Amino acid sequence: MTVERALPTPEAHDLIDLTRDLIAKEVAPRAAGDESAGRFPREVFTTLGATGLLGLPYPSEYGGADQPYEVYLQVVEELAAGWLAVGLGLSVHTLSCFPVAAFGSDEQRAELLPDMVGGELLGAYCLSEPASGSDAAALTTRAVAGPDGYTVDGVKAWITHGGVADFYMLMARTGDKGARGISCLRVPSGLEGLTYGVPEHKMGMRSSPTTQVRFDSVRLPQSALVGAEGEGFRIAMAALDGGRLGIAACAVGVAQAAFDAAVAYAGERRQFGSRIIDFQGIGFMLADMATQIAAARALYLEAARLRDAGRPYGTKAAMAKLFATDMCMKVTTDAVQVLGGYGYVEDFPVERYMREAKVLQIVEGTNQIQRLVISRALTPESRR
Amino acid sequence: MTVERALPTPEAHDLIDLTRDLIAKEVAPRAAGDESAGRFPREVFTTLGATGLLGLPYPSEYGGADQPYEVYLQVVEELAAGWLAVGLGLSVHTLSCFPVAAFGSDEQRAELLPDMVGGELLGAYCLSEPASGSDAAALTTRAVAGPDGYTVDGVKAWITHGGVADFYMLMARTGDKGARGISCLRVPSGLEGLTYGVPEHKMGMRSSPTTQVRFDSVRLPQSALVGAEGEGFRIAMAALDGGRLGIAACAVGVAQAAFDAAVAYAGERRQFGSRIIDFQGIGFMLADMATQIAAARALYLEAARLRDAGRPYGTKAAMAKLFATDMCMKVTTDAVQVLGGYGYVEDFPVERYMREAKVLQIVEGTNQIQRLVISRALTPESRR
Amino acid sequence: MTVERALPTPEAHDLIDLTRDLIAKEVAPRAAGDESAGRFPREVFTTLGATGLLGLPYPSEYGGADQPYEVYLQVVEELAAGWLAVGLGLSVHTLSCFPVAAFGSDEQRAELLPDMVGGELLGAYCLSEPASGSDAAALTTRAVAGPDGYTVDGVKAWITHGGVADFYMLMARTGDKGARGISCLRVPSGLEGLTYGVPEHKMGMRSSPTTQVRFDSVRLPQSALVGAEGEGFRIAMAALDGGRLGIAACAVGVAQAAFDAAVAYAGERRQFGSRIIDFQGIGFMLADMATQIAAARALYLEAARLRDAGRPYGTKAAMAKLFATDMCMKVTTDAVQVLGGYGYVEDFPVERYMREAKVLQIVEGTNQIQRLVISRALTPESRR
Amino acid sequence: MTVERALPTPEAHDLIDLTRDLIAKEVAPRAAGDESAGRFPREVFTTLGATGLLGLPYPSEYGGADQPYEVYLQVVEELAAGWLAVGLGLSVHTLSCFPVAAFGSDEQRAELLPDMVGGELLGAYCLSEPASGSDAAALTTRAVAGPDGYTVDGVKAWITHGGVADFYMLMARTGDKGARGISCLRVPSGLEGLTYGVPEHKMGMRSSPTTQVRFDSVRLPQSALVGAEGEGFRIAMAALDGGRLGIAACAVGVAQAAFDAAVAYAGERRQFGSRIIDFQGIGFMLADMATQIAAARALYLEAARLRDAGRPYGTKAAMAKLFATDMCMKVTTDAVQVLGGYGYVEDFPVERYMREAKVLQIVEGTNQIQRLVISRALTPESRR
Repeated sequence: MTVERALPTPEAHDLIDLTRDLIAKEVAPRAAGDESAGRFPREVFTTLGATGLLGLPYPSEYGGADQPYEVYLQVVEELAAGWLAVGLGLSVHTLSCFPVAAFGSDEQRAELLPDMVGGELLGAYCLSEPASGSDAAALTTRAVAGPDGYTVDGVKAWITHGGVADFYMLMARTGDKGARGISCLRVPSGLEGLTYGVPEHKMGMRSSPTTQVRFDSVRLPQSALVGAEGEGFRIAMAALDGGRLGIAACAVGVAQAAFDAAVAYAGERRQFGSRIIDFQGIGFMLADMATQIAAARALYLEAARLRDAGRPYGTKAAMAKLFATDMCMKVTTDAVQVLGGYGYVEDFPVERYMREAKVLQIVEGTNQIQRLVISRALTPESRR
Repeated sequence: MTVERALPTPEAHDLIDLTRDLIAKEVAPRAAGDESAGRFPREVFTTLGATGLLGLPYPSEYGGADQPYEVYLQVVEELAAGWLAVGLGLSVHTLSCFPVAAFGSDEQRAELLPDMVGGELLGAYCLSEPASGSDAAALTTRAVAGPDGYTVDGVKAWITHGGVADFYMLMARTGDKGARGISCLRVPSGLEGLTYGVPEHKMGMRSSPTTQVRFDSVRLPQSALVGAEGEGFRIAMAALDGGRLGIAACAVGVAQAAFDAAVAYAGERRQFGSRIIDFQGIGFMLADMATQIAAARALYLEAARLRDAGRPYGTKAAMAKLFATDMCMKVTTDAVQVLGGYGYVEDFPVERYMREAKVLQIVEGTNQIQRLVISRALTPESRR
Repeated sequence: MTVERALPTPEAHDLIDLTRDLIAKEVAPRAAGDESAGRFPREVFTTLGATGLLGLPYPSEYGGADQPYEVYLQVVEELAAGWLAVGLGLSVHTLSCFPVAAFGSDEQRAELLPDMVGGELLGAYCLSEPASGSDAAALTTRAVAGPDGYTVDGVKAWITHGGVADFYMLMARTGDKGARGISCLRVPSGLEGLTYGVPEHKMGMRSSPTTQVRFDSVRLPQSALVGAEGEGFRIAMAALDGGRLGIAACAVGVAQAAFDAAVAYAGERRQFGSRIIDFQGIGFMLADMATQIAAARALYLEAARLRDAGRPYGTKAAMAKLFATDMCMKVTTDAVQVLGGYGYVEDFPVERYMREAKVLQIVEGTNQIQRLVISRALTPESRR
Repeated sequence: MTVERALPTPEAHDLIDLTRDLIAKEVAPRAAGDESAGRFPREVFTTLGATGLLGLPYPSEYGGADQPYEVYLQVVEELAAGWLAVGLGLSVHTLSCFPVAAFGSDEQRAELLPDMVGGELLGAYCLSEPASGSDAAALTTRAVAGPDGYTVDGVKAWITHGGVADFYMLMARTGDKGARGISCLRVPSGLEGLTYGVPEHKMGMRSSPTTQVRFDSVRLPQSALVGAEGEGFRIAMAALDGGRLGIAACAVGVAQAAFDAAVAYAGERRQFGSRIIDFQGIGFMLADMATQIAAARALYLEAARLRDAGRPYGTKAAMAKLFATDMCMKVTTDAVQVLGGYGYVEDFPVERYMREAKVLQIVEGTNQIQRLVISRALTPESRR
């Protein structure tokens, strides 16, 4: 089913049409095969860059498309419905470009953004470590400043695009303990001392490598610093606010894909002399799924519009990420149920959607962390 | 807590401010007392009419305010947060005016709408019967056409504003069995043969009378007919599409009120040496409540914007009604839990919110009927 | 519907039959009226005592029936299904007798238990205070020891049977801060300085008074002490382990009553040409309700059998209380839904069941406290 | 963690100990490897047969152990916690033996049961077909009776142990349309015309082959008939009643294994300076998981005890299957969440448990079919 979208401009409609066309031709046909083989579709990102879809929310002066988040996210949603590795890859890439776009110097922007949004430079975002996930401010990777730059030592974990990215947006400790001792550094691939773990054997998203990224006396020039020293944690959190909306959009896309497959099956499959969609046991389940998807989409779009209007949106982004990914887990699990045995086998993509859904409840802040973010905004001192 | 609202115009902001002011002065102070006493606040509706809040979505040429549903519904939400009997009363009144506004003749509109939106004529909507609730098309109340009008016999059930309304928008059978034999008739109060049952003893919404409305050879002039003969079921269903959005807005309002009370309590109450909001057991529950409320509000607003744009919105309205009222039931139940024993007693309004929530899952199509509406829109024949 | 029970002995079957007979004759007929009037049915407890149902789990040498908890709880369940105020009243009474039965001296047992289980002395349990609910060990009511007994000052809150009980099993501070400074004292009604607040205006259970109990220099003889000084908190927690099973049984009873009413209605009510039980939308909801009730009953019986076998059962009791009361809230809310408008009015008892259900999630440790109890049993140090 | 079990006899305790020992030595060590390689552990079933665990509920005169279902199912649960392919394999095998044990002639029993319970003959159960899953009575595989036996043509689908079993308990049509035209036939492997599809590529349970089983003019002697002609559907349904309890036990086992892994991780993993089990956000989630597992186990054991007592238990078995498998899906999904990224990778077994859980909601009657079974037992005509 094609989702009818409320879009703000005719240009946005064209972008969605372009995206759907690209998915039909370049993305969907390879998804199952590459997932099964664990092959990363680097060339899809090159195509996305060439068609202008990698830089939607970034300024046109640097090759971006000046699109509001409201539009960018619906493109992410469509891509994620076609193949999560691509939709989530775009979201992670956007997240990785954000520090340069929002906190970088004019020189950094001019030098880097055009290739970042053009598809030449694929990004990765390095915040988590083996012992600091939810408690990101406790990270221990160190960047020691010297006369001609930084020397980095440490290990980052759970890095999407690890080993295939062209640059790594790194949060490392340049100062004391705590959030204020962290800085943001851009690390191009190929440096001496920069190595990658073996890709994790994940339940889903197998085409998209997730690895450790290890820094062993990696030397960076002074110009690698994005923003000021000590500003890294603030940059990282601001990036995550937007990133969480990307995850929410991915979740809606995956859920929509699973739902569409379930509706199609239920409209054809007959038991007891009727289509199973005509039994309330199935029909009501589908109605609940449709409702949950619609609510999740409305919620992430509302948060996006807040961001587009320049208003605070971090709490709403956390809500959107929480709601959409919990919803996606439930909807994909129920979609498998609608197909019964056919849902449990690889002949249909529904089991893949369910395996993909689970990661979305975990990345860019587990849903427990989202609840923490939201609940803290409710305390008397936050509401003053 | 004051909800920050995204509103389309400065005028809409003024309307919300006006509403909040009116709630603070005229509505909230009497809610608990009138609920406890079972006293219907007719004069509040007069005030709403006088301040222009009774005719928000109707044309200014008839005394309305030409406001989009997006704005009207947020006014309903605010009123329902202050006192559900008023918010839901406004929604039911709007529903009862709809047939005249949308299907009436110019004469009917000119004659009736000004008083309807001015607060002089309070409306009720007569569709359900003791034996036909969900299956509304099976109604048996008959309006027999004669030379000088109709004679009506039958019993309507579960009528909000029964006995206190000034007019009853009646669906009655003028023709054969089934949906096409039903017509819409306007019945002013005070006619001979028109009587009311004793008000139902309800779990909540006790200030708002719900009664049977009985027609015993009630005579109506030909001009009572709204729309064409046989068009009644279609009018009733179109009215309900909008009415369901009103219920969704009410549900969000009641949930928000309960949530606000829970947040306030949890930010003050201390146990084990801390505010209970700082325990994740309570904080995460509040985070989930906040998220669900935000999603419900985003969903009804999305449906409203579809309606405002002249696009089909019936399925989305059913989704909004389903989601928002199930959410409201859960959120109010959890709000009582946050207050513990204090939540279970009338000293705090939270127990009232919980009792009010339940009716919203039932009225204007039970949530089972909403699921039926949604699931039917998913069948192959509906999606062609 | 009559629940088929697996009972260990023919005697137990007789007890259940006796209970059902008594409910049909003495309990059920007055429930709605007394609930509505807020009248406490003291004489029902006298009858329960006279028929031997007040002392089921206590030793026959003191007038009890030597029944296992497995049987006692099923009697509580049956009574709660008939009228929660009676079922819960029995559970609270049993809880209030427990300190004497389990920790009292032989003299105390001989003097008090026969009248406690005979129905002459109805009990209340005084642990909570306005500022210490979940954090019970922080209680501040003081009992100062003097040469000829104790002088008690303080306020207890949320006391079931407050003002109608014949004795109050009081936890008061005789020593320092914390759990070890608390002692258990038996307080007969009628003492000077012992007064009661006005009964709380509760959402449900209105026939059963819940009040503050105030101690203003109340003098108690030394013999009022039950167990040793400082042992009170341990006694209170042990009592609550059993009390929680009583609440679980009450929850299953109320849920069963609501479910039975829903099944009966759904088997008769016709819409769209069929009984509504034959629509999967209703039928599946009833199936889920039946399943949840069965699981809750199985769980509390398993915990009861652990207790009866002399094995640790506190964690399982917390699980049973948590599961059964959350289930009861859901099942009663859904039962109202099955009846639609008929569920929301007092003509049917289902709305009462829903109002009653809520209190069960709160009393004898909110369900958040149950989760705390259970999660603490999972820590490495507890599992060693 | 070792589950403390309430068992009826010392012999039963010995059986559980034996099972645990066997799991530790023979089952658990190979589970991950064989799952990954898709290798069926036929020899584990031989070992189970040799140690007497394959015939627990069957009579000792045929090599069984005369154990009540209450004990047999707890053995299944333990095995499933170690490796679902083995626990579920045992359950399917027991199901496949049931027609001979319960409906076979003395000759059939004497000839076949000893090898069935001894591990020489592994069973499969052939009921579903590509176009008849939930609607099993619509099956079309035909067994045409001739002078010297039957000729079978048709295709069975979703057959556990397809291609590795030594016998197939087949439901085939020997008569007219509908349930009464079906008979049960025992088909040894190796017959001419009996072939198998390629194993399905499943989301989980990859070591256990699921295939189509195709009959192309397969000849069977008259003695292949189990029970009378036309009795097959009744036999199949009776077998499924017991089989569903086996699935429930499997679900509890898988959930327990996932829970144990989550508790162990949460007791060690530190963030923000504390073990994560000490945060209520995680601790309460674990408490809910523990509670749900305990309820599911109590429910299947209650159903088992009904069966063991010779009382009707089919509805309770459907409830146990429904509750336990929905619970297992939720608990395993939450267990992955507790481990965060570590839960999503194969280094820990938790992602495998989640993939395994899903199939349990589908097999031996989808959970929708269970709800149908339960709801039908609630109709007036069933309750008379």
